[in-house]
Amino acid sequence: MKSKRKTTIKDIANVLKITPSAVSRALNDNPRISDKTKEAVKKVALELEYQPNQLASALRSGKSNLVGVIVPKTNSYFFSTVVESIENELNKEGYNVIITQSNESYKKECRNIQTLLQTQVDGIIASLANETVDFSHYEKIKSKGIPLILYDRGENDIGVDYIGIDDYESSHLVVEHLVEQGCKRIAHLAGLSQARIYKNRIRGYVDALEKHNLPLDTDLIKESNLTLEDGRKKTKELLRLPNRPDAIYAAGDYAALGALQILQENNIKVPEEIALVGFSNEPFTSLIKPTITTISQHNKKIGKLVAKQFLKRVNDKNWKPVLTKTILKAELIIRDSSKKI
Amino acid sequence: MKSKRKTTIKDIANVLKITPSAVSRALNDNPRISDKTKEAVKKVALELEYQPNQLASALRSGKSNLVGVIVPKTNSYFFSTVVESIENELNKEGYNVIITQSNESYKKECRNIQTLLQTQVDGIIASLANETVDFSHYEKIKSKGIPLILYDRGENDIGVDYIGIDDYESSHLVVEHLVEQGCKRIAHLAGLSQARIYKNRIRGYVDALEKHNLPLDTDLIKESNLTLEDGRKKTKELLRLPNRPDAIYAAGDYAALGALQILQENNIKVPEEIALVGFSNEPFTSLIKPTITTISQHNKKIGKLVAKQFLKRVNDKNWKPVLTKTILKAELIIRDSSKKI
Repeated sequence: MKSKRKTTIKDIANVLKITPSAVSRALNDNPRISDKTKEAVKKVALELEYQPNQLASALRSGKSNLVGVIVPKTNSYFFSTVVESIENELNKEGYNVIITQSNESYKKECRNIQTLLQTQVDGIIASLANETVDFSHYEKIKSKGIPLILYDRGENDIGVDYIGIDDYESSHLVVEHLVEQGCKRIAHLAGLSQARIYKNRIRGYVDALEKHNLPLDTDLIKESNLTLEDGRKKTKELLRLPNRPDAIYAAGDYAALGALQILQENNIKVPEEIALVGFSNEPFTSLIKPTITTISQHNKKIGKLVAKQFLKRVNDKNWKPVLTKTILKAELIIRDSSKKI
Repeated sequence: MKSKRKTTIKDIANVLKITPSAVSRALNDNPRISDKTKEAVKKVALELEYQPNQLASALRSGKSNLVGVIVPKTNSYFFSTVVESIENELNKEGYNVIITQSNESYKKECRNIQTLLQTQVDGIIASLANETVDFSHYEKIKSKGIPLILYDRGENDIGVDYIGIDDYESSHLVVEHLVEQGCKRIAHLAGLSQARIYKNRIRGYVDALEKHNLPLDTDLIKESNLTLEDGRKKTKELLRLPNRPDAIYAAGDYAALGALQILQENNIKVPEEIALVGFSNEPFTSLIKPTITTISQHNKKIGKLVAKQFLKRVNDKNWKPVLTKTILKAELIIRDSSKKI
């Protein structure tokens, strides 16, 4: 594992039989160099594992080649895999990724932004904390002209590029599946309705009931922070209702797990007596008994699209400021917790 | 959630009836200010939620108030909780944490260090990637006089402060427990022996067998990268042995889960026919059936100790360069997968 001699710009120049300054210009995306030469230089640089002196090149170009990613929490399979995918894409293009976590706190999110701006990042990729309902801290990023891309938890008000899944449609997939299984009283452990993604899941749930001619019973909607503990608590409340639900659709897998625990502790058969569906395909959903039906959010694809959108924004300064909103269709993964037929 | 007017140094001065410059000196830890005054200023600053202008104060003091944390992977309950705990401690003292992940790659770890140094961090807290066997990239940090603390996966050769659990002793706890349950042929899904923590787990396993007068059968030791997939593969190999094991001790929970899947697919009763123990108390170990016996690594405590050690290093420049090595005793959490009696 001892490192070999470092590749220099000269080495790349020798291979291609061009001058070192042409290599340098190509690497710095100088418009005087042809795209063909740029491609060739990039290819050889990759083959020889050329590593530019980042700090010197940042001083030269005013670029740090750093991208900051804000995650609401690192201990989530969804966020981990999205970040990994963002990193894979951006590393290939010479960017390094630094991560900060908000722990679902508005205050920490403000601090995260301040920290990332301090490190002179070339762009920020963020997903909002559950607590965040005011977005003025994001204006600071925009006012500095630094590309900002939101993923998963975004908000129209911020007015930036966004990539996520279709939360409204996801609830339709879930309700339709439960109706097919014969369920008629479908409860919803909903996320905090102040966040757009959870509001959309609630809207989708309500509209899908309507579509399938099922009455809306607001007693069956429980707003929750979607932790395991709160999933347990809200499920206990559902079981105390005079007219119990025959299905529970939780807007998060941990809340679904809390529900499952309470159902099992009360010897209620899943899915026979109460069917169960979660959201986001955390790995444990396929490991426990019964396995939990859930929604897959295309984690890797979201990361890839986010990275590509950032690269577009950062590479083409003249690009028209038309915001893009990319909404992926989610996928329902049907498992034992809801398969009644 | 609209932000109120920002607290200034003047506000703190008014409350304490001292001059703004005394407040500023106290906040910058000037030796001419008494400890009592510093305490009082810090308390009021916290109460009024005073947020210093980080960049300006970095320029003044040469400090960035940033601490970089390198994790081998973010999608691990152990690393997530350690980082969360480090962050809680350091935020209280005015430091912000940025995270980079090595994805178990030596090359990425080198890049992580370069990235963190570029952001002018005041210190680096790291846990080594599985691939890392050469440590020269860490010398760069030391040569700049930047505090470096290693946690969990460390290496004596680097010569810096270290906090982790007693891996050698942990294997003793596991083997002793399995012997008490009547197991006589205990297999070990070992981590890659190039890493010190896994080597220590292997050493502990071998010595504990000796202590309990059990013969050492090297066929029962399978080196593994400890992923779920590799846990499955190595368990299949164990089942093909003419003389099967009656227990499997995996040096990681995901490998233990892979083992459990193979045992269940082969209708082998756990723990009756083969008992199973994992390592690191990932949340799923308590959620699946049977629940998996495992080792708890005191995640939060490790994070807290790491943060405290960093603060010691950064606050006391005259502190004697005596390295501290803090080794915590791990805890065996006995669950259904190994309870035969």
